[in-house]
Amino acid sequence: MASIYGKNIVVSVFGQSHAPAIGVTVDGLPAGQQIDMQALARFMARRAPGQNAWSTARREADAPKFLCGLSEGKTCGAPLTAVIENTNVRSRDYSQLRELPRPGHADYTAQVKYGGFQDVAGGGHFSGRLTAPICIAGGICMQLLAQKGIHVGAHAAQVAGVDDRPFDPVGVSRADFEAVWSQAFPVLDPQKGAQMCERIEQARMAGDSVGGVIECAVIGLPAGIGDPMFDGMENRIAQAVFGVPAVKGIEFGNGFGAAALLGSQNNDAFATDGVHVFTKTNRHGGILGGITSGMPVLFRAAIKPTPSIAQPQDTVSLPKMENASLNITGRHDPCIVARAVPVIEAAAAIAVLDAMLEKSSW
Amino acid sequence: MASIYGKNIVVSVFGQSHAPAIGVTVDGLPAGQQIDMQALARFMARRAPGQNAWSTARREADAPKFLCGLSEGKTCGAPLTAVIENTNVRSRDYSQLRELPRPGHADYTAQVKYGGFQDVAGGGHFSGRLTAPICIAGGICMQLLAQKGIHVGAHAAQVAGVDDRPFDPVGVSRADFEAVWSQAFPVLDPQKGAQMCERIEQARMAGDSVGGVIECAVIGLPAGIGDPMFDGMENRIAQAVFGVPAVKGIEFGNGFGAAALLGSQNNDAFATDGVHVFTKTNRHGGILGGITSGMPVLFRAAIKPTPSIAQPQDTVSLPKMENASLNITGRHDPCIVARAVPVIEAAAAIAVLDAMLEKSSW
Amino acid sequence: MASIYGKNIVVSVFGQSHAPAIGVTVDGLPAGQQIDMQALARFMARRAPGQNAWSTARREADAPKFLCGLSEGKTCGAPLTAVIENTNVRSRDYSQLRELPRPGHADYTAQVKYGGFQDVAGGGHFSGRLTAPICIAGGICMQLLAQKGIHVGAHAAQVAGVDDRPFDPVGVSRADFEAVWSQAFPVLDPQKGAQMCERIEQARMAGDSVGGVIECAVIGLPAGIGDPMFDGMENRIAQAVFGVPAVKGIEFGNGFGAAALLGSQNNDAFATDGVHVFTKTNRHGGILGGITSGMPVLFRAAIKPTPSIAQPQDTVSLPKMENASLNITGRHDPCIVARAVPVIEAAAAIAVLDAMLEKSSW
Amino acid sequence: MASIYGKNIVVSVFGQSHAPAIGVTVDGLPAGQQIDMQALARFMARRAPGQNAWSTARREADAPKFLCGLSEGKTCGAPLTAVIENTNVRSRDYSQLRELPRPGHADYTAQVKYGGFQDVAGGGHFSGRLTAPICIAGGICMQLLAQKGIHVGAHAAQVAGVDDRPFDPVGVSRADFEAVWSQAFPVLDPQKGAQMCERIEQARMAGDSVGGVIECAVIGLPAGIGDPMFDGMENRIAQAVFGVPAVKGIEFGNGFGAAALLGSQNNDAFATDGVHVFTKTNRHGGILGGITSGMPVLFRAAIKPTPSIAQPQDTVSLPKMENASLNITGRHDPCIVARAVPVIEAAAAIAVLDAMLEKSSW
Repeated sequence: MASIYGKNIVVSVFGQSHAPAIGVTVDGLPAGQQIDMQALARFMARRAPGQNAWSTARREADAPKFLCGLSEGKTCGAPLTAVIENTNVRSRDYSQLRELPRPGHADYTAQVKYGGFQDVAGGGHFSGRLTAPICIAGGICMQLLAQKGIHVGAHAAQVAGVDDRPFDPVGVSRADFEAVWSQAFPVLDPQKGAQMCERIEQARMAGDSVGGVIECAVIGLPAGIGDPMFDGMENRIAQAVFGVPAVKGIEFGNGFGAAALLGSQNNDAFATDGVHVFTKTNRHGGILGGITSGMPVLFRAAIKPTPSIAQPQDTVSLPKMENASLNITGRHDPCIVARAVPVIEAAAAIAVLDAMLEKSSW
Repeated sequence: MASIYGKNIVVSVFGQSHAPAIGVTVDGLPAGQQIDMQALARFMARRAPGQNAWSTARREADAPKFLCGLSEGKTCGAPLTAVIENTNVRSRDYSQLRELPRPGHADYTAQVKYGGFQDVAGGGHFSGRLTAPICIAGGICMQLLAQKGIHVGAHAAQVAGVDDRPFDPVGVSRADFEAVWSQAFPVLDPQKGAQMCERIEQARMAGDSVGGVIECAVIGLPAGIGDPMFDGMENRIAQAVFGVPAVKGIEFGNGFGAAALLGSQNNDAFATDGVHVFTKTNRHGGILGGITSGMPVLFRAAIKPTPSIAQPQDTVSLPKMENASLNITGRHDPCIVARAVPVIEAAAAIAVLDAMLEKSSW
Repeated sequence: MASIYGKNIVVSVFGQSHAPAIGVTVDGLPAGQQIDMQALARFMARRAPGQNAWSTARREADAPKFLCGLSEGKTCGAPLTAVIENTNVRSRDYSQLRELPRPGHADYTAQVKYGGFQDVAGGGHFSGRLTAPICIAGGICMQLLAQKGIHVGAHAAQVAGVDDRPFDPVGVSRADFEAVWSQAFPVLDPQKGAQMCERIEQARMAGDSVGGVIECAVIGLPAGIGDPMFDGMENRIAQAVFGVPAVKGIEFGNGFGAAALLGSQNNDAFATDGVHVFTKTNRHGGILGGITSGMPVLFRAAIKPTPSIAQPQDTVSLPKMENASLNITGRHDPCIVARAVPVIEAAAAIAVLDAMLEKSSW
Repeated sequence: MASIYGKNIVVSVFGQSHAPAIGVTVDGLPAGQQIDMQALARFMARRAPGQNAWSTARREADAPKFLCGLSEGKTCGAPLTAVIENTNVRSRDYSQLRELPRPGHADYTAQVKYGGFQDVAGGGHFSGRLTAPICIAGGICMQLLAQKGIHVGAHAAQVAGVDDRPFDPVGVSRADFEAVWSQAFPVLDPQKGAQMCERIEQARMAGDSVGGVIECAVIGLPAGIGDPMFDGMENRIAQAVFGVPAVKGIEFGNGFGAAALLGSQNNDAFATDGVHVFTKTNRHGGILGGITSGMPVLFRAAIKPTPSIAQPQDTVSLPKMENASLNITGRHDPCIVARAVPVIEAAAAIAVLDAMLEKSSW
């Protein structure tokens, strides 16, 4: 059991980079929900490769084909399955992966786990391409959430050491999300975006790659969502977000920064306008005791630099059990942060919808 | 579904701070395993309150009573349940919590979720006291893991801005864990520990509190454990670790630090001595593609400062829906990091044993 | 993972017959629900041993002690745990069970599964005594269901070849359930009950035992509950009911009888009074496509005769791997059907509440 | 969550009768398993429609297309997804189903559950056509089980009141399964099969339908598989088998027959040949306490008569809330028992493989 997430909805991702298709099944979606296919396509486009200089040259339509789960364009209560057929496949690039595992990739660990039977072509099931089905599922979840006034947005908060302006933890709004979408590079501050692109280009020229941090916000969530202990919103979101390849850390609200503060600096005082309860600050990231507070849910995910780089690297010849050198050829993003932004949104949306579908009263 | 974790073992935590008892059931433990009750007591003692100046004055035996799951001191295949009876309960301290939610606590979010029916005494099910059952379960898991040469250890890597020496990511050993246990404060470098205690004492004197970071290592894990995507080791450990109250972030290996590196700096080259495959560095924290690499699994968890502080804080009177001021009295740790160290170990051990119990071959 | 049931509530049963205690945790109960302890005690009493001639002589208070999950007598949202302490334990009766497995019991299969480490005293975790915690959980579920006008009732439909009058599949009502409770033996027709008791007594005198069939009805359930395929109401109820020891079959509505009918005889025509849709007959047992139709849910469970009989039986000496003879001594019910009636109700109630807690709309 | 089964493997069925495709994902299959596509096709063919007089005229290739999960013809550890494209769709037949629910079908219950948004064409997700993906998954499971000497076989034990010879509960063998496959109608006794076909034809001529009982055996299973209480083999198999449309009952071993026996008649004495432990009789159906005994697992499933009949039936016009009459046209099996035989085998195989994949030792 690996590529399955959720309790009230169950998202099941399948496919390998060079298999006939990749796809996703979502079981448990409420019936009667109109899917806006145009909006879904626009969302998917934000993840799509081949858009510009900093993205892999592999170009695909990546248009999902819906096999079932819809009736007259609306969810019908049955499991929804959508697939993306794999075209433009260059299998010849990947012949040596079973022998010479790439540093930073899952080649070696999969080799051990699956006894050498894993599909190595294009990274197989571990390929970043599998984030496309996550976006299909997440994009649909976002449409359902939007009906309740809940919106999910993210931006490249840091790339190659350049920091974007952060979301306002209290006042982050849908306008901020739209501002990010309007940029060529998904940031709030276009000047920072330009600097990031510059550094990405430098890395690419050097046959290297860069990482970054994605900040994500969920706004409009009511208070009282999530459960204590192992099913808190942090647990749920973390389980979904670590499903995105290259994520190596997650923090909510002040996160690691809170560790260095005093309690008096980190606590968020409650306040009221007579009608609502809110906090004046939002260092808790909208979650207390695993349960939403009604403030924006805020988290940051660390994205490691793309492990595929054009420089020679040390590795091991597994058949010979000898040290060896590896040159990775083919097309690779020098930075996946920008393309990962909608994927992180998708993962968060899946986790949030799943939590929202829990019955709250008897 | 809230306080339940796992697939191959199922750990189910129950209890409220001032209910008759707290406890845990572990279903699915392999039969025939001797539980070393002395060793478990020693492990539990590392979490126990009332040990010293930096810990709450509430003193309890906290000796678990095993209701079932054992036969002649060995696991018998049936669910194992252990409880700790709550004694020394001072319910009068908590009368105002339903009215005036404490900043940084789950009082308000629980009030909304449970419609005011939550048990407020001592924080109820959200109390840090619920980490004792996690330690019972985790302590047992650690004993099973130790049989296979797998050990889990942690230390206070940072408290109040003071950094301890980190584990050697490649060479961390059981000797390091024992070194931590031998300290009054759980650090590798006793001088740093002394500085931490000083700052904790300063915070306490100021009616304030401090947070920190716990670094945890799992050594001896074979390669090939864990699953891709949503059931990777990062996902599994994160789901368990966010079950520990006050955790606001988790990072594996280089974590957020990786975000600022180049791919050539962050990748770990593979190497072999002709028999084993290993990496010369361990920036990946022992996990690639969700699956263990055979290198130490390394993660860091951010612990926020104790939200209960002795200073007056702004809050809201929920019955009156008016702004109000709150003074928290009673006994509270000015820093929970030291006591959380074994809890983080326990959470990690639960996640690792659960993953290890997956059948690997047909 | 064995003794755990449910998705929206999670019922986790623990204990062995002669361990310090048996009990149950129910996670996910809605908060704010008053538990009527008197009503629960009356429900539990219907299962209690030692009531009369046809029941084992082991007498116990079996009063559940609530460790947590309640606050001021109401559910508080936290997991609810209740235990029954084992007293009156006669461990000496069971010394030979590890050597000479009893026919019809789990002694041999547990021996193989747990490598001989299972707790054999009194049947360990396989003891019929473990149905007491099922009744605690189910009794609570029944109280919640009753608030929505949903009631669960059962009777001994057949014992030792004597058939009780069946429930009216369309008109079964709470009055029928109460009629059963008012009887010394849980039947609708007291004359049949007297005959059943006679045959039980004959079997007891002959050192033998008898089985039977329990018919159970759930009334007041709205239409539209349950899911297609693997999560239908039949699947859910079957998974719960086979958790009751000695159950060897289950059928819904006409069940096995439907196999011999024509479609025109088995179909239930729909009809309306202008306001409601109903069926004039109820051969479908209130479930179509896994989903409730609004008609009473009706099922029958086959209970095998108590395997513990006072006659010598052939078995195998496991240490010697030789054929051997076994004489079972001690106290055993010659018929467990009457005591199993409330247990079947409890199992059904757990399954139904779990299904009802699924969110039905967005 | 509806169409998902399993813990160690997760089988997720998707599709509607007239959607672009139906299919199944199996997550968790061990890697490196060769799938014999010819054998799978032969297995699927036993379920295929249009084979003969007693089966629907809808003819389809029903050849599964594997989208992923394989590499060079072997399982690769990644989720395996196979789809069957729906061709030969006659949507015009089904226009009235949303208005006039068919007796014995899920039309009405789905209408209530999904608020009228369900896909009604051809029964949507409730169609018997969805048993094809169950057969894909089950057929693969059977191939894996066969490697360990575990085989699953079934036959039409009763159709329209005609009984086939039962399996020998102790000696049932693979030869019996092959004998069934060699028949035009899946029985052990061809004369009985001929009588069954006659009665089916009579029913068909009368515009009616018949039901039956399927007996299924799992041979070669080692002792010690399955868990107590809610995860016993009876619970697991029942949960899978009730996933097959039209199943209304299941019994193991003597089942409902055991209810009328004495304990001395129903118990199976243990015996040994000095090497193995076995029972001389097999009234327990190979399962004691939820755990396999090493004897054949035997169960019987009740199949209700096809609800689609050619006679006029009473129903309700849902838009008008008036009583109405319904004539079902189109192609329908007058008896689905024969085609359900491999589906029941498939469901059992899925349950058994899932249980076998549980790790048994530490």
